[in-house]
Amino acid sequence: MNNFVYDIPTKIYFGENQLGNLGKELSKFGKKVLLTYGGGTIKKIGLYDKVVKEIKDAGLELFELPGIEPNPRIESVRKGIEICKKEKIDVLLAVGGGSTIDATKFMASGAYVEHDPWDFFVNNAPIEKALPLVTILTLSATGSEMDTGGVISNPETQDKLGRLGRPMLPAVSFLDPTNTYSVNAYQTACGSSDIMSHILEVYFNMNQDLYMLDCFMEGLMKTVIKYAPIAMKEPTNYEARANLMWASSWAINGFVNGGKRQAWSCHPIEHEVSAIYDITHGLGLAILTPRWMEYCLNEKTVSKYVQFGVNVFGIDSTRPPMEIAKESIRLISDFFFKQLELKSTFKELSIDDTNFDIMAKKACKNSTIEGFVPLNQEDIKKIYEMCY
Amino acid sequence: MNNFVYDIPTKIYFGENQLGNLGKELSKFGKKVLLTYGGGTIKKIGLYDKVVKEIKDAGLELFELPGIEPNPRIESVRKGIEICKKEKIDVLLAVGGGSTIDATKFMASGAYVEHDPWDFFVNNAPIEKALPLVTILTLSATGSEMDTGGVISNPETQDKLGRLGRPMLPAVSFLDPTNTYSVNAYQTACGSSDIMSHILEVYFNMNQDLYMLDCFMEGLMKTVIKYAPIAMKEPTNYEARANLMWASSWAINGFVNGGKRQAWSCHPIEHEVSAIYDITHGLGLAILTPRWMEYCLNEKTVSKYVQFGVNVFGIDSTRPPMEIAKESIRLISDFFFKQLELKSTFKELSIDDTNFDIMAKKACKNSTIEGFVPLNQEDIKKIYEMCY
Repeated sequence: MNNFVYDIPTKIYFGENQLGNLGKELSKFGKKVLLTYGGGTIKKIGLYDKVVKEIKDAGLELFELPGIEPNPRIESVRKGIEICKKEKIDVLLAVGGGSTIDATKFMASGAYVEHDPWDFFVNNAPIEKALPLVTILTLSATGSEMDTGGVISNPETQDKLGRLGRPMLPAVSFLDPTNTYSVNAYQTACGSSDIMSHILEVYFNMNQDLYMLDCFMEGLMKTVIKYAPIAMKEPTNYEARANLMWASSWAINGFVNGGKRQAWSCHPIEHEVSAIYDITHGLGLAILTPRWMEYCLNEKTVSKYVQFGVNVFGIDSTRPPMEIAKESIRLISDFFFKQLELKSTFKELSIDDTNFDIMAKKACKNSTIEGFVPLNQEDIKKIYEMCY
Repeated sequence: MNNFVYDIPTKIYFGENQLGNLGKELSKFGKKVLLTYGGGTIKKIGLYDKVVKEIKDAGLELFELPGIEPNPRIESVRKGIEICKKEKIDVLLAVGGGSTIDATKFMASGAYVEHDPWDFFVNNAPIEKALPLVTILTLSATGSEMDTGGVISNPETQDKLGRLGRPMLPAVSFLDPTNTYSVNAYQTACGSSDIMSHILEVYFNMNQDLYMLDCFMEGLMKTVIKYAPIAMKEPTNYEARANLMWASSWAINGFVNGGKRQAWSCHPIEHEVSAIYDITHGLGLAILTPRWMEYCLNEKTVSKYVQFGVNVFGIDSTRPPMEIAKESIRLISDFFFKQLELKSTFKELSIDDTNFDIMAKKACKNSTIEGFVPLNQEDIKKIYEMCY
């Protein structure tokens, strides 16, 4: 059991009609606010008008950067940094899903450096400072509203890379479940798949850590399994949207890790897929996860699958371990492909084996992913093949 | 489902040998440190010397206030405030269990006011500021290391009263499970009983809130049930001590509440017992809790007991609800009185019915505790009688 430091000071306003606190929170950091958002959903659902009103009512000066892409691009980050520097922005306000928040995080850190922000990803340029960041979440998925990381794409190099940086942790996040009412069934499914994957990446780990954290992860997974299908069928079900929203934050804010320091597996393997084919991250994860679980199952790892199957799916614990393990993989596949109704193969997405070699090589950085089960290029290629 | 604000910025150093960070953390707040502690256990286990060394090595000026009582008294708080004011203390360092930390919280807030600190408890005097507080925990129980509250006794008036105050939230807490190795089986049992009660006070609630929080509470309860008996038998079992320690913080730091705002029941009922008889809080809670559960069980509340029995104790969910409920009360009684080996009646503690009337009256403040099931003076008296 490793030591750890728990330090997650993000303040969360959870629930409906909490935006009255926005002006007060932004004002703590200064006068000039850069509002970032995506393709206009926030205008459609009326959130944009409310946000602008709060900013104006608080007497703050508003700057805007719309158009942040899904799988956000480094070019958007560059644009944001330019505005921050030119206008001497005091605080960033990201309104959207993980893509908008991720991109805004690197505007916040990029505002303090002279080099190109892509250096954060390829040259490990240090992240020592960042402008304060406030977020208003509109999609339950990445957990970016309460964590220190983000993932940015560079279409020129076909790279999609992640980076952590403590100064980028949001200071305040507004989590209003009703802001996700307009998320359609497919995007709700992809977001839920992403949340599930964040938990599985930590949960499937042979290093013993705190039992209470395993219990908590099992609770988070049961929450996603219970509510994702409800939210898909009843988009304005507050209970379902609220549970998914708070689960999205806790799946990845660092709490469940305790002292575990194992590398993630499915995420880097998926990033190479969406970097080239621009598919939704959560969909790629759904396709990959059951195959990864199947590939990693062996006599040494089976006990973790048993714990998962018994505690999350309620499989009878007296059955033989290998049988429980396989049943648990079948049930998580059912979750992704039947309950979430997601496509189950690369073939259906017109992804063939053309790039499997290069994708596998990049996913393990030409070495090995030291995750639940160590995976080298050959292993990853096999997992891609299982997905075809 | 109510809205809530989540805002728990306490930084936690979890694990062994993290004290090397103490000087750095204290220095953030200034030069003059008031170290508070209890009866000398921290000297016996060698912690005192380590702490003093870190303080000296960091070039800080050390002041000391030893002798904080279990069920800490307002007189100790007054002494601490006097030192804070006279010496212009910058930061308080509480080393001990909940009693030491609770008392120190009110020194921190009392340092900023001119009135007597007992006014915080009887006259609801505002708590607007407090000196920064760092804690080093030596007993897993009250959760004071990561919450905003504390309970103080006033022997003159036979009162034992609690108060919350956000500025008193510890800034940094050091949670080293090995610092609880010397806690004997009885105190481990009482501490575990206290943790369990904190969870039950929130969990037993008919107001629907987030399912994921119920899952988390069930995980916390399973953690305490699993590890408390192990820690009693194997006091240096790191895994057991670590799980209990982190569970103690999360049972009461506010996270599990979500938007629930229901009053607690067993705690105020118990405080009247330990205010007069000076018994250990966790022991009083163990005796009271199963009787309170029994008293509150009815057709309207039974569903919560079923959820508890099935999810925490694994009782077969197909059995009749009332049967599951009664079985769950039997099992939680077994936990307190068999696994934790705690005394099960007031009689065994030489507490008779002499003061039941006045205790019941004070517990409900001459009105009603609006908790899981509303309880008036008559109800509370009956619960006391069931404990005899």
